[in-house]
Amino acid sequence: MITKKKLNSKTFPSLQWKITNTKKIDYSIIITKNLFNKNNNLLENKKTTIISSSRRLIFIDTNVNAFYQKKIEDYFLSKKIEYKIVPLDIKEEDKNLNNLEKILNYIDNFGIKRRSETIIAIGGGVLTDIVGFAASIYRRGVPYIKVATTLLCIVDACVGVKTSINHFSRRNRLGTYFAPEKSFIDLSFLKTLPIDEISASIGEIIKIAVIKNKKLFKIIYNHSEKLLDANFYKTKNGKLIISESIESMIEELHNNLDELNLKRSVDFGHTFSPVVEMRSLENDKVKSLKHGESVCLDVLLSCCISFNRNYLKMNDLKKIFKLAKSVKMPLSHNFILNADFLLESLLDATKHRNGSQNIPIPTRIGEHKFLNDVNENDINKAIKLYISILNNEKNFSHRD
Amino acid sequence: MITKKKLNSKTFPSLQWKITNTKKIDYSIIITKNLFNKNNNLLENKKTTIISSSRRLIFIDTNVNAFYQKKIEDYFLSKKIEYKIVPLDIKEEDKNLNNLEKILNYIDNFGIKRRSETIIAIGGGVLTDIVGFAASIYRRGVPYIKVATTLLCIVDACVGVKTSINHFSRRNRLGTYFAPEKSFIDLSFLKTLPIDEISASIGEIIKIAVIKNKKLFKIIYNHSEKLLDANFYKTKNGKLIISESIESMIEELHNNLDELNLKRSVDFGHTFSPVVEMRSLENDKVKSLKHGESVCLDVLLSCCISFNRNYLKMNDLKKIFKLAKSVKMPLSHNFILNADFLLESLLDATKHRNGSQNIPIPTRIGEHKFLNDVNENDINKAIKLYISILNNEKNFSHRD
Repeated sequence: MITKKKLNSKTFPSLQWKITNTKKIDYSIIITKNLFNKNNNLLENKKTTIISSSRRLIFIDTNVNAFYQKKIEDYFLSKKIEYKIVPLDIKEEDKNLNNLEKILNYIDNFGIKRRSETIIAIGGGVLTDIVGFAASIYRRGVPYIKVATTLLCIVDACVGVKTSINHFSRRNRLGTYFAPEKSFIDLSFLKTLPIDEISASIGEIIKIAVIKNKKLFKIIYNHSEKLLDANFYKTKNGKLIISESIESMIEELHNNLDELNLKRSVDFGHTFSPVVEMRSLENDKVKSLKHGESVCLDVLLSCCISFNRNYLKMNDLKKIFKLAKSVKMPLSHNFILNADFLLESLLDATKHRNGSQNIPIPTRIGEHKFLNDVNENDINKAIKLYISILNNEKNFSHRD
Repeated sequence: MITKKKLNSKTFPSLQWKITNTKKIDYSIIITKNLFNKNNNLLENKKTTIISSSRRLIFIDTNVNAFYQKKIEDYFLSKKIEYKIVPLDIKEEDKNLNNLEKILNYIDNFGIKRRSETIIAIGGGVLTDIVGFAASIYRRGVPYIKVATTLLCIVDACVGVKTSINHFSRRNRLGTYFAPEKSFIDLSFLKTLPIDEISASIGEIIKIAVIKNKKLFKIIYNHSEKLLDANFYKTKNGKLIISESIESMIEELHNNLDELNLKRSVDFGHTFSPVVEMRSLENDKVKSLKHGESVCLDVLLSCCISFNRNYLKMNDLKKIFKLAKSVKMPLSHNFILNADFLLESLLDATKHRNGSQNIPIPTRIGEHKFLNDVNENDINKAIKLYISILNNEKNFSHRD
């Protein structure tokens, strides 16, 4: 819609056109199995417009490709669809401008059509983030599909519309909001997933459970010793963990896809962790933290803040620490106990939340509120409490 | 909205969440004068949220800054708004990834808040394109305002929502659709505009007139000898040219901001010109073409195609060549007569239009249709006709 009006000022006459419009966003998240079985027709659905004359450019995680290349080739051959497979070996520390350029270069060399030759990104969140970013800026956006092969991607990156690379030593500093056509979650990929990839997702699952899904918390607490076993996700409870995690994420995101609202419960675990994680990757002298691990450390620290503010009960706080221990999350790291890093990260998160801290903390398991007045003193007190809990760690065991 | 459903297949059971939402796009294009006069309050309007605690990061064309820095500083000082001015000297050939990174670096160092510290881009289309792109990807988008200081930006870049840089030797190969909060057109900047900057815009004005605005064509045809005079745009007819050009652009763009419809009349002059322009910038042995100049050459060539297809009458075709001559556009260039470059550009435009040529050509002045079957033969015939018109150039003078 256009509305045109003259603004009447003798000194500064002006003419204004106001343009308003809406853009429709529309995508699906689909859990299935054996996506690349020739008889599974999900990839052929209307919106992905697989037509005979079109081609597919496939970016795939190197490790996944080692297991599935033949199957994927057979799939496209059987559909008579021309394809090019580009294996990518991209870890968190490689999610940078340099590799973005390389991916853009592949897209350009492929000579992709602007609308009908959907890019397919098969891998974990790091891969779907960077390929999604490339897709979103090449010719101002070409369509893409995500196929999540890691548990972390399944419960996190694959659900939303965010794309990104790390830059200026900051996680996801550059990126876009750009919905995929579809996100596929193929549980059969999990069977070849290394244990540390499963472990990497546990932080985000704990996060969403603690902050907004009591039912999910109960399931993971009761089955914590099985959470690292890939086979567990074939069982009813394992599948329930996946669908409940996704459900909670969707619930939170669907009305706030481009984050106009900066109070986001899913930011839980993401206030203090970004600097902790990035610094751990840059510093050879400390253990590198995976994203899910640093999120889990932030969850524990934020729960300490909540306890100090008289929200979370000690019983629940201990339960959360116990759960983290039981699923073999690192319970501590020099950097999560470094007040300077925590303050730096809080300051940056505050800028990211436009000047408000908006720190989500659980008031009890599955419920939350936002804090906007956390200061250095709170952080130091939280670190003290954190250390004292760690010191008493031996005093508690799972389900005592 | 979320709709959840189970897809029933025994072999491949699946669970689908469908997420649909709309994103509101809303911005204004405002013609005014003396935007930076302390008493002009347009920059203070609600949506630009100038509040006492917020700051402004201003990217400004070096040449414009030389004239207006003091005025702009006085403006922000009088409003008690903290600001940082970053002069940029960016020409078409500098609209690249390297300079994008530099701009992102300024934004990061400024420590911009995510929503309330609007970036201000003051300059021509090259500057607003690249700053807009940086704004669109920094933290997945921070707000920005365009202030157009060149005639080309006024009638073109400043009207729409496209941001970009050149890459892979292609114009605007990377970019986003990202609406500014506002686009300001301050006609008082024109008085310090060098003549070749005015000349650079004439191509786009001729383009929009020929393809969809007969009234505009009549005005520019009748006043063609004044079009290069900056003072002309203070007169009623000069202003009418600006507002008619903007009006036609808005009419075309407002319902197609993100180009879901790839039949765009404003692509007139942009089918063959991209490769011609980029190659001219890369090759020291030929005259570098400005964007508006290469657009005008494409307009002339496309009009030849139209004549050969029995749409445009010779009388109108000659009128358009005469107009181009009269406003001192280059009437020819080795590269617009190079069939290889034209075919390469057509091929790329076809990819950009998802496999359809969608070449807009005028059927008469102010009306158009789209061609989808232009081949090498058409191009060679058009080149021949083009050359013969050039050879007869002396035979026609303006208004004969």
